[in-house]
Amino acid sequence: MEEFSSERLGRLTGMLKRRGVILPAFEIHGGAAGLYDFGPVGGRLRNRVNQSWIEHWQSLGNIVEISSPTVTPYPVLEASGHVGEFSDFVTECQNCGEASRADHLVEDIHPNADALTKSALIDLIKSHNPECPSCGSSSWGPIDAQNLMFNTKIGAGSSGRQAFLRPETAQGMFTSFTSIYRHFRERLPFGALQTGKGYRNEISPRQGMIRLREFNMAELEYFIDPESEPVHDFSIWNQSLNLISEESGSISMTISEAVSKGIIRHPTVGYFMGWTMDFLTNVGINPEHLRFRQHESDEMAHYAQDCWDAEINGSYGWVECVGIAHRGCYDLTAHENATGQRLRAWRTFSEPRVVEINGWTTDGAKAGPAFRALAGKVKLAVEEMSADSSFPISLDIEGEVVEVLPEHVKRVQRTENVNGEWYVPHVVEPAFGIDRIIWHLLDHSYSETEKSGEDYTLLRLPEAIAPVDVTVLPLYEKDGMGEMAERIHRDLCGRKNVFSVYDASGSIGRRYARADEIGVPYCITVDHDSITDNTVTLRSRDTGEQTRVSIDDLPF
Amino acid sequence: MEEFSSERLGRLTGMLKRRGVILPAFEIHGGAAGLYDFGPVGGRLRNRVNQSWIEHWQSLGNIVEISSPTVTPYPVLEASGHVGEFSDFVTECQNCGEASRADHLVEDIHPNADALTKSALIDLIKSHNPECPSCGSSSWGPIDAQNLMFNTKIGAGSSGRQAFLRPETAQGMFTSFTSIYRHFRERLPFGALQTGKGYRNEISPRQGMIRLREFNMAELEYFIDPESEPVHDFSIWNQSLNLISEESGSISMTISEAVSKGIIRHPTVGYFMGWTMDFLTNVGINPEHLRFRQHESDEMAHYAQDCWDAEINGSYGWVECVGIAHRGCYDLTAHENATGQRLRAWRTFSEPRVVEINGWTTDGAKAGPAFRALAGKVKLAVEEMSADSSFPISLDIEGEVVEVLPEHVKRVQRTENVNGEWYVPHVVEPAFGIDRIIWHLLDHSYSETEKSGEDYTLLRLPEAIAPVDVTVLPLYEKDGMGEMAERIHRDLCGRKNVFSVYDASGSIGRRYARADEIGVPYCITVDHDSITDNTVTLRSRDTGEQTRVSIDDLPF
Repeated sequence: MEEFSSERLGRLTGMLKRRGVILPAFEIHGGAAGLYDFGPVGGRLRNRVNQSWIEHWQSLGNIVEISSPTVTPYPVLEASGHVGEFSDFVTECQNCGEASRADHLVEDIHPNADALTKSALIDLIKSHNPECPSCGSSSWGPIDAQNLMFNTKIGAGSSGRQAFLRPETAQGMFTSFTSIYRHFRERLPFGALQTGKGYRNEISPRQGMIRLREFNMAELEYFIDPESEPVHDFSIWNQSLNLISEESGSISMTISEAVSKGIIRHPTVGYFMGWTMDFLTNVGINPEHLRFRQHESDEMAHYAQDCWDAEINGSYGWVECVGIAHRGCYDLTAHENATGQRLRAWRTFSEPRVVEINGWTTDGAKAGPAFRALAGKVKLAVEEMSADSSFPISLDIEGEVVEVLPEHVKRVQRTENVNGEWYVPHVVEPAFGIDRIIWHLLDHSYSETEKSGEDYTLLRLPEAIAPVDVTVLPLYEKDGMGEMAERIHRDLCGRKNVFSVYDASGSIGRRYARADEIGVPYCITVDHDSITDNTVTLRSRDTGEQTRVSIDDLPF
Repeated sequence: MEEFSSERLGRLTGMLKRRGVILPAFEIHGGAAGLYDFGPVGGRLRNRVNQSWIEHWQSLGNIVEISSPTVTPYPVLEASGHVGEFSDFVTECQNCGEASRADHLVEDIHPNADALTKSALIDLIKSHNPECPSCGSSSWGPIDAQNLMFNTKIGAGSSGRQAFLRPETAQGMFTSFTSIYRHFRERLPFGALQTGKGYRNEISPRQGMIRLREFNMAELEYFIDPESEPVHDFSIWNQSLNLISEESGSISMTISEAVSKGIIRHPTVGYFMGWTMDFLTNVGINPEHLRFRQHESDEMAHYAQDCWDAEINGSYGWVECVGIAHRGCYDLTAHENATGQRLRAWRTFSEPRVVEINGWTTDGAKAGPAFRALAGKVKLAVEEMSADSSFPISLDIEGEVVEVLPEHVKRVQRTENVNGEWYVPHVVEPAFGIDRIIWHLLDHSYSETEKSGEDYTLLRLPEAIAPVDVTVLPLYEKDGMGEMAERIHRDLCGRKNVFSVYDASGSIGRRYARADEIGVPYCITVDHDSITDNTVTLRSRDTGEQTRVSIDDLPF
């Protein structure tokens, strides 16, 4: 691979647009920043990478795929914390009025600007007084948090309920936990994954496919019992990874070593780092341009126990493309608290335990009619109260204040033999940005060379994800060669997982070049001999080698 | 298949929810009408049906896949007509205030209520005075058209641009026409397809998966030269189809016959009807419950030349699941008019023609600076004007009035030898509702029988789309049987396109029943003998047959 440069980036972007791989969406209508199309070549590339991702994780044996809506009611994202937290700090230029992300203004002077607090951003902007990227002046207004979700309403007209386009696919796995738990017959660990659109209403999208307003995500939520020792076979990876750990800085070691030394803080996080590395290199990411960076403690969400980003180096520098986070019990607990529904798993003790129960519960016959829909939540709240509580008492149940009278409750005091307990599973989440990965595999596969003194480019895409598997080229469209090529082409298109393109325009050399440019692994040429002996020339993109094969022996 | 009934529907819906096939979304948060999840079993079913659809059409040899954003700027959907036309007629109950769709109120008394005009609906509601489905009273307010698109804004904050969630995937193919045309090296016919989410903010969603607010669509836009005679091989279908034609009513005949008699008005429409029938029956739709209904002339969009719906019979009666429409040049012309960009194909004449050009064009040197961004559109408008036009003249260019002075224009008068011409391709569009098809294939596959005197259900899903290919069952989880079953299970999960489930709970009979209920084609049982001789019992869902095979000879 050549060195990355802005000139190379310009040529690559131009090729991707011209050849229908990736192009700005709705361009005839003036376009819209942060929205991209996968075109006639890119569409199948996106699909194949997406399907490879699903198959890669499903092969673990305890992972299922789900699919939930993108339109998400307000309460779901309020519970998850997105209504309150999913925002960027924004400030307006006092001269031209253009809004900018505060962290973008200081990213040249701080290595982790996007993790800074509001007050840190205020201080930095005050002390360095950056220029407005739009007008160049340096006069900034106050800094405000702006939520990044796309708003909409469910239900037409004035009666619509507030909703958002999901900022991530993960919430669908949490809200479906009960169904997934039942599917796995209540045995952890297990995981559920989902691919699909995610949305982020960026203040100022930039860097092409890196920062989109609508993007392709792929997330796995893996549920584990925090008290079970994870069993993982790390021996399948004996290569060293590039790690940037919080405490040790840049190091290179095997996953097994990093886990046993506690640099990677949870074995399942380490296992998924290995599984992630395999996926990325399988689809064409150059391992020399891949590293895993551990989040600093102050960069991580407060509930996270460990988090590593897979970062890929390319034309935009090192870019975060995957995040692998140990999220503890945060998500399920958040939805439990918001809904009063139990999102837990049952843990059977190795031997029964005697438990003393000393507190309160509700008297169903009286509390039921009194609290109606809230009765279940009142019961949970009362059972949390200590033995020395006294009634009447006012409780805040989801913002509604209820008066619990002595007649609604009864004391509970007994010992029980219990066989197990309900607990909130922990979650390890590998979250992939599919568009960023596709961008980088194109960036890494793109190769600029020379042929017969002329510029020549090719995409060295792995066969498994190349959007076009083969092109079929009649030497000329006469003497039956066109018809034969067409017949072979249609036959190949009818085969499972094979996509062929028929190309009859220009010289064979020109057509080979066209195929190489979009990374077609093989070309088939039909010539005069083909008509008589049913053989064709099979040419390999990577070796340039041409072999004569019978059409009955084509390797597809 | 048994007869459809509401009791059977209730049992089927219950099973689909319990087993994690299809379930109401966000239910722990109270749910949201018209939003569904594909659960741990349904997720892979959705994926497989979707991928089968893509492969089925791609096998035609001149079809590409694209993927465009769901968030769509206002001008795109204004150009397509959706801002003005994509609406339902709504009226409010004067007693309880509940909004209802006007056509739903009269659908019992009119066979095509959803095609009625506003005034026809007013008359019918006046004369029949239907009851409010919510409160039972019969007092209706005025009828208004209400747009059904989900609104949102691109760009956070007050500067956001108005946008919608796409009501269909089709517009992405039209706005990308130039890229697709270039990909096919400017040779028609060709098609582009896209699958993904579509959105329709229903007034009152109902009927489970039939009327969703967010749904899975799959559309193909097939571009043809209206002056070329289509070449299709109809001989691959010699079975008769159930047709309901506008003129002949219910008939049964082959596609070839219906096309040659002009009942199907365009050969490509007929060809796609056959291709659609193949797809539907491949994924498990019972052909006896499939028919094609031609739109009445007054039901069809004004620009459409022919339109057939594939309707499937099931628990909700006959439901439209696919529409196959000849849309003429409507869509590309609409985007041309809105953008001034050329969305055309070049047709080479069989021999050059002499053409007289007599009219006006603009003088670039003067018109360019005068009209700036509008110059291109002014030029097109001036070139449309007749030779006897006089200047100055005021033109309305996209709502902006410009004054064209004599100095901006010049006369053009000459004859030319031309080799061809630009024309707007026509479009034939097969549009599929994937959720409705999945619903019906489940409905058709669901079979209620008895076994040993007890109720027994199974899903007779085709192997190609069954979400679970095989379950692996250790007779007991001891003596190495659990480990061996687990090993076989993981090995199968690692194979391309195979998904296995490991199940160790309950008797083998119970586990077979569980597998049958969700349509798993094969079960593998690991018993004591397996440990010594490496053979397992392979049981077929459909025949119940059990054979002993070596684990090296498993048919996956």
